[in-house]
Amino acid sequence: MAQKSETEDKVVIFDTTLRDGEQSAGAGLTVEEKLRIAQQLADLGVDVIEAGFAASSPGDFEAVRRIAQEVKGPTICTLARAVPSDIEAAGKALEGVENARIHTFVSSSDIHLMHQMRKDREAIMNMAVEAVKQAKQYTDDVEFSPMDASRTDPVYLYAMLEAVIKAGATTVNIPDTVGYATPEEFGELIKGVFENVPNINDAVVSVHCHNDLGMAGANSLAAVENGARQVEGCINGLGERAGNAALEEVIMALETRPDHYQAGTNIDTKEIGNTSRMISGIFGFPVQYNKAIVGRNAFRHSSGIHQDGYLKDHSTFEIMEPETVGWRGEALVLTKLSGRAGLRARLADLGYRLKDEELSDVFTAFKDLADNKSEVDDRDLHALMSEQHRFADTDRTYQVGAVHVVCGNDTEPEAEITLMCPDGEERSAKKHGTGPVDAVCKAIDSVVDMDVELTEFAVNAVTEGIDALGDVTIRIEKDGSIYSGRGADTDIVVASAKAYVNAINRLLMIDTQDAGATATPSETV
Amino acid sequence: MAQKSETEDKVVIFDTTLRDGEQSAGAGLTVEEKLRIAQQLADLGVDVIEAGFAASSPGDFEAVRRIAQEVKGPTICTLARAVPSDIEAAGKALEGVENARIHTFVSSSDIHLMHQMRKDREAIMNMAVEAVKQAKQYTDDVEFSPMDASRTDPVYLYAMLEAVIKAGATTVNIPDTVGYATPEEFGELIKGVFENVPNINDAVVSVHCHNDLGMAGANSLAAVENGARQVEGCINGLGERAGNAALEEVIMALETRPDHYQAGTNIDTKEIGNTSRMISGIFGFPVQYNKAIVGRNAFRHSSGIHQDGYLKDHSTFEIMEPETVGWRGEALVLTKLSGRAGLRARLADLGYRLKDEELSDVFTAFKDLADNKSEVDDRDLHALMSEQHRFADTDRTYQVGAVHVVCGNDTEPEAEITLMCPDGEERSAKKHGTGPVDAVCKAIDSVVDMDVELTEFAVNAVTEGIDALGDVTIRIEKDGSIYSGRGADTDIVVASAKAYVNAINRLLMIDTQDAGATATPSETV
Repeated sequence: MAQKSETEDKVVIFDTTLRDGEQSAGAGLTVEEKLRIAQQLADLGVDVIEAGFAASSPGDFEAVRRIAQEVKGPTICTLARAVPSDIEAAGKALEGVENARIHTFVSSSDIHLMHQMRKDREAIMNMAVEAVKQAKQYTDDVEFSPMDASRTDPVYLYAMLEAVIKAGATTVNIPDTVGYATPEEFGELIKGVFENVPNINDAVVSVHCHNDLGMAGANSLAAVENGARQVEGCINGLGERAGNAALEEVIMALETRPDHYQAGTNIDTKEIGNTSRMISGIFGFPVQYNKAIVGRNAFRHSSGIHQDGYLKDHSTFEIMEPETVGWRGEALVLTKLSGRAGLRARLADLGYRLKDEELSDVFTAFKDLADNKSEVDDRDLHALMSEQHRFADTDRTYQVGAVHVVCGNDTEPEAEITLMCPDGEERSAKKHGTGPVDAVCKAIDSVVDMDVELTEFAVNAVTEGIDALGDVTIRIEKDGSIYSGRGADTDIVVASAKAYVNAINRLLMIDTQDAGATATPSETV
Repeated sequence: MAQKSETEDKVVIFDTTLRDGEQSAGAGLTVEEKLRIAQQLADLGVDVIEAGFAASSPGDFEAVRRIAQEVKGPTICTLARAVPSDIEAAGKALEGVENARIHTFVSSSDIHLMHQMRKDREAIMNMAVEAVKQAKQYTDDVEFSPMDASRTDPVYLYAMLEAVIKAGATTVNIPDTVGYATPEEFGELIKGVFENVPNINDAVVSVHCHNDLGMAGANSLAAVENGARQVEGCINGLGERAGNAALEEVIMALETRPDHYQAGTNIDTKEIGNTSRMISGIFGFPVQYNKAIVGRNAFRHSSGIHQDGYLKDHSTFEIMEPETVGWRGEALVLTKLSGRAGLRARLADLGYRLKDEELSDVFTAFKDLADNKSEVDDRDLHALMSEQHRFADTDRTYQVGAVHVVCGNDTEPEAEITLMCPDGEERSAKKHGTGPVDAVCKAIDSVVDMDVELTEFAVNAVTEGIDALGDVTIRIEKDGSIYSGRGADTDIVVASAKAYVNAINRLLMIDTQDAGATATPSETV
């Protein structure tokens, strides 16, 4: 972790990638995937990880429980509606954990009270206070959020905050749930909270901003200017709709402008790049080229694409050194001569900690790749790990055997594929399609015999060069739920087969985790 | 165009997608492509189009000249350094045009003066004044930018603004060139400009913010709060490094919060969606899923992915109706029974105006697609047009004939390809590769006999469904310049061949346009 001054005022960084981020349409992670992201968030140095919404499904409960047990360093938090059954589930998921937080919330704006809750202000106030009191039975560290705070009558908001702090809330969070606020007025709102809530200094003031108008980061920072000392958000700006504040932007604004904000963080900024790539990989959500801090063009000047094309004096056009946020000047490269120990060390550096049997699988995949590609760099390793992690998750899996495809515009594309099935048998099928991917998926469908719909297909070459690894992301839909799959291979048709089978395996896995689940409530912070 | 109140205070929307946006690493457009984007920007209703940097290359000069001649409505602007040869080129490019603006700039911060310009403040001030005077000989509408204004000594900045306005500048633009400012201080800067520049009311105050810390939009809006009445930016937030203010965010903040900003725009917001998709398509830069306003998830709730999954009362969680920004509730669908007139009408609605011979080519491609895909929707049409537009640009082209590929993990991938060559001959080649795309590109290389490097390869399915069109983006590098290519086909291997050949054709085309070009100066606003 970077050396930080101990006297500097600190902003608590609260990451909700695993809760609000996972509510992004088309996300949906397994417990193992969430655990890996949580571990990387700990390496990044976030102070609080919102690991899920324990009451919403057995899978979320299990993810919160395992992250709380296994990830050391950050405080682990779960969301809970201000109802007894949710708080009870939260308490159970965090049982026996040292740094545990329960984050409970209820709507406070009249528009939500009318349309969503159909309750009056007094009843809502009681729910909030009772929820905090109940949560305190499980942990001292209780956060409360009045949902849609930025559209709530300020007088009612102040009263509610005072009441929940009195009831024991140690953090009060002001969400801009619909992404409606401007920095000027959101800063004023926070100022108003400090001026009008008598016991406000008994709690940390937090903010949770949505990005519908593109101002989530700026609103969060305006709140810090006015005394807020916790910022909630997601790496890569994930989250419902247009997402939450992109934590990497908030962090780097604080780190780049200490003269202005007079506050720092506990973040090891060099881990930002790794964290962004891992989350993009596991979620299957690409990062926009011109995304601030983590986009591939964020530090590229039109005058040249290579790092040595930079101008002589960086400060002329650059306010950050790319290395500060984990861009690597010279990518370290592995080749087919690299050994197991070298691979393990490189992967550890990228945030992947492997058990011996996991390393064996990855090493085999690495050797296969290195046979086709002279240099294997960090991006290739991230792609391999995205795939390996996903396969390792599933006990009951289909596995891709032989793939043979003929395609082009002078023939009807045809695919023959063999799958190793969960029952131990090998089965094959041969199908025509409108293209090679269509034919491959149809052949797999006929073996698996499941009714799914392909909703998304994307391939990205992982590195430059004509021999690059093709990284395929597929999403399938079944009964209204979406499952993603990844596959990487120098042959994009083989990668597509792997990704499609991976999506099917994950569907089977997540359905098992969530057997008997109730749907995630749509209304959250 | 939407009905707007005439009494409302208006913010001038200045689009620089074709200048700063084109400086995004890996962009690079042909003159025809720029013309199409400019036409769509006119449909969107932007007030000013910065069409290029006339002095930087013959291709840019020609783009500015043709857009100024052919695109009606917006003021057409070209950038020019504060040196006589640049202003002269700008004047020539805009000759005889009614609504023409010259935008000249020079560095004003000490850090730039020292490291970049190696001139003292007085010399720089003279350059600025002389440039404005020279520009006034060509047009009354002259904009001046002191580059790196947010890091410039305010006293010097005020003096410079006063001098250039006295010399005739009608717009003065305050750039945050390195994306360093915060909304609070950028607002203060604009306030300071109004308070300290005696003749400031003789000019429109403009802002141009970069997004390195994710605050370009918020900074622009803070400037509007303090009296700025022009905002510069790009659709999709394109531009150098992390890009410029995303105009769609600034526009929708103004339109959604008239209570706060007390100002509106002349924009037809329903054209935002079309504009974003066209620019993403022609630039080959995908839009992040969670991008505000124009990302695919921007209006999607986790509770369901379909529009009918919306909550009963939208205002509970939504501050804009998706239709306001050009999302279509029910996509209109064409089928193989659709005729030429239906296709033309649908394309016109999407912003594509076609000559008869262009329509014939597109109609053929549409019929081919409709044979493989039961429903052709707007997204398919955007993909077809991205490809068709690019082909139509090039006189001297290679064209893809027969493609035949065998691949899989039980064979060495092999591609046989036939190209129609510019000399009228057909040539074929057969090559092995590590995958089908590698083999296809190697076969094409051996016909074309040119030394290029593949730097990027991406495929996206255009729509849901297993029979979707695969939209391939390829970038190749030659002698330090990057050229993109697009291809669409239900067979992604055929689409890859088309995209690779398209990139090679565009390389030949752009090299011809820019013969004898000087490199674009790296230092711009």
